Amino acid sequence: MTDSIRVLHAKYLLPIIPLDTVLENHCVIIKNGVIQEIIESIEGREKYPIAEHQSFRESILMPGLVNTHCHSAMTLLRGYADDYLLSDWLHKHIWPAEAKWVDYDFVYQGTTIAIAEMLKSGTTCFSDMYFFPNAAAKAALDAGMRAVLSFPVMDFSNQWATNSEMHLEKGLMVYEDFKKHEQLNFSIGPHAPYSVSDQTILSVINAAEKNDLEIQIHLHESKKEIIDSVGEYGVRPIKRLEDLGLLGPKLQTVHMTQIDEDDLATIVRTDTKVIHCPSSNTKLASGVCPVQDFADQGVIVGLGTDGAASNNMLDLFAELRLASLLAKIKSADPRALSAHQALRMVTIEGAKTLGLEKSIGSLEKGKKADLIAVDLNKIENNPVYHPESSLVYTSSGTAVTHSWVNGEPLLSDGKLGPLDETELLAIMREWSAKIKA
Amino acid sequence: MTDSIRVLHAKYLLPIIPLDTVLENHCVIIKNGVIQEIIESIEGREKYPIAEHQSFRESILMPGLVNTHCHSAMTLLRGYADDYLLSDWLHKHIWPAEAKWVDYDFVYQGTTIAIAEMLKSGTTCFSDMYFFPNAAAKAALDAGMRAVLSFPVMDFSNQWATNSEMHLEKGLMVYEDFKKHEQLNFSIGPHAPYSVSDQTILSVINAAEKNDLEIQIHLHESKKEIIDSVGEYGVRPIKRLEDLGLLGPKLQTVHMTQIDEDDLATIVRTDTKVIHCPSSNTKLASGVCPVQDFADQGVIVGLGTDGAASNNMLDLFAELRLASLLAKIKSADPRALSAHQALRMVTIEGAKTLGLEKSIGSLEKGKKADLIAVDLNKIENNPVYHPESSLVYTSSGTAVTHSWVNGEPLLSDGKLGPLDETELLAIMREWSAKIKA
Repeated sequence: MTDSIRVLHAKYLLPIIPLDTVLENHCVIIKNGVIQEIIESIEGREKYPIAEHQSFRESILMPGLVNTHCHSAMTLLRGYADDYLLSDWLHKHIWPAEAKWVDYDFVYQGTTIAIAEMLKSGTTCFSDMYFFPNAAAKAALDAGMRAVLSFPVMDFSNQWATNSEMHLEKGLMVYEDFKKHEQLNFSIGPHAPYSVSDQTILSVINAAEKNDLEIQIHLHESKKEIIDSVGEYGVRPIKRLEDLGLLGPKLQTVHMTQIDEDDLATIVRTDTKVIHCPSSNTKLASGVCPVQDFADQGVIVGLGTDGAASNNMLDLFAELRLASLLAKIKSADPRALSAHQALRMVTIEGAKTLGLEKSIGSLEKGKKADLIAVDLNKIENNPVYHPESSLVYTSSGTAVTHSWVNGEPLLSDGKLGPLDETELLAIMREWSAKIKA
Repeated sequence: MTDSIRVLHAKYLLPIIPLDTVLENHCVIIKNGVIQEIIESIEGREKYPIAEHQSFRESILMPGLVNTHCHSAMTLLRGYADDYLLSDWLHKHIWPAEAKWVDYDFVYQGTTIAIAEMLKSGTTCFSDMYFFPNAAAKAALDAGMRAVLSFPVMDFSNQWATNSEMHLEKGLMVYEDFKKHEQLNFSIGPHAPYSVSDQTILSVINAAEKNDLEIQIHLHESKKEIIDSVGEYGVRPIKRLEDLGLLGPKLQTVHMTQIDEDDLATIVRTDTKVIHCPSSNTKLASGVCPVQDFADQGVIVGLGTDGAASNNMLDLFAELRLASLLAKIKSADPRALSAHQALRMVTIEGAKTLGLEKSIGSLEKGKKADLIAVDLNKIENNPVYHPESSLVYTSSGTAVTHSWVNGEPLLSDGKLGPLDETELLAIMREWSAKIKA
């Protein structure tokens, strides 16, 4: 971060707030990593004559995208096992591979690669749930990326911790170690209803209240999860969590593909937040989250890529397009999840989902200068009759040319820096050679 | 086309036939635009020492993709109207814009832009159904692209023709004018059951038999189409077309999102072919074609982008990923439309759909040298545990670096030639400025 003033001009500027606004020929004034103001370009050049000016003539400037759910280090297992039944995928492929390979280095390097991929495709903040959150925190810090570490809690033993108490204890230690860093945020990640006992959930609620942390949990991902819960607890998982006191405005529920009317009403009544992962849910044939139903009733819905082993991309623009297309089919209405609404979901609504709406998610005075430039100077994105539509229906992450976090450029003209893509590619190939062997 | 021999080497070679094969360090030998043989790279260098050798070290070489359904010139209306109900979209936006703007130049220039976009994203053959097929034929010829002109027939008056007889007559004249060109093929395109009378369909069948042409028709696209047909004819459209004698192995049916058991049985029994357009069908909330059900029963299924006004991309790699994800949800089985199967759908099955399987759709001795190189040298495509999976689940058209038609390079290192992207972009902006005004 520098004291100097940076002025970014663009043909189109999407501040997201005010809603559904496209400003033409405006600029963003950035100082100390914070947005000072947004004014017309002509005014910006007059008012800040000695600042560093940068112009994006055929681009859109907008807030950096918020990836509300990821298992970042799994980039190293991307494409390792596709086209399998969920149970085979987990038990025969992913879990054995994780048991064999996951350690601090795996997570540090896999997460660094994920951050590189996210910056390349326009994501400037991600929420991560994985083993060794200390490694992921260090990776985000070293890369200059904004992150939420949702440290995992589960009853099962793994390389990171052997039981739920140890998960919680180690996670809180990571929180204490890293919480001083402005770009890092934390939440508690009880894995899923089927991997945490009632007692564990109560401990998580207690720890969250004590430390003022939000909670993120996988919920209602598949039919089997519902059937098993009804068998074991006599109720659907959402009801069980409500009875335990977990639902509420500080709970982020991930997946939510199996939603009946009661579930919907409960989520609405308790102000619980929802995270939609359309690629992962379709690829594993889990189901489709009824995002438009949630949004219509005022539920906050964010978008997530999930991990690269089940997506297999960490490209939120690709995710955005898929989310919009699926919502239209799910609602049998082509107006569902319109371009405007989709862009809010991946910016300000994503920030709300993670409890970060005061600092990111829109281009407004006083917010962090986390933003991106998307180039629309290609035939496949033109004509630009409506910039929001071009972004949602014709763009992919490859159209992103610049990403800034706290006003610092982390991607410029499509090139990463300080991260080095060639180096990261070599690291990936070393890992995959070992894993394949 | 030249007499000289061109040898293309790649790390991975997907011939598609034999099925599910990945060859490592092989090369394709091309002479006079035709594939001579596929052998190991070492052997290729020994056997053809003075040929022009080109190496793709981290790429996949595979057959060019086949886009079985497009309205190419609509690139000029991309993003013109999104997020509307189908009837509003057609009646209030698309049809009025077409009535005002579509002429020979619109189609020639819009189609040229579509060809550029398709070549950039790996498509080397497309089937087109639009007004002024003479303009589209000329555009394909000038660009060196392979195309099937499915010339339109409908009872309604438009800028191209005033009634069905005139459509048929003018279409057949275009066929006579252009059929001598090896890279151009033709079929007859009766628009849809609701836009052609029984008499028109009989005339189309007659003309198709006389000229040995296949037929392509939009069919069972939306619920409304079925309801209206039952109201007007007492039967669903598929039954009506069967009674008229239209179904059969030379009929290509596009969309097919509303399929009951009888429909499925009829398509299977008559050996009718199916074209799946997942982006368009989801974006307009029409429904999802049950591709896995069709494929399981041996029906030939190809993939199409549809026009850029309803997609809004002409990127078959994006379409491929969406098709696979939707099939998994539709079948409630993550094994549906596997990476292998998806790649066949967009190559050899696409060629079969258009009746061109003898000349394109796979890399085999004697077939046309229509092929592409896809670069996997980026973090977002790695690790490459399974090249087919990387192609389907992590690639988009932007990973395509080279496209050849008849052995001629039309895209090299991501750059078009002889087509000029800057020039085409300027043309698009001229049109959109006029259309917006």
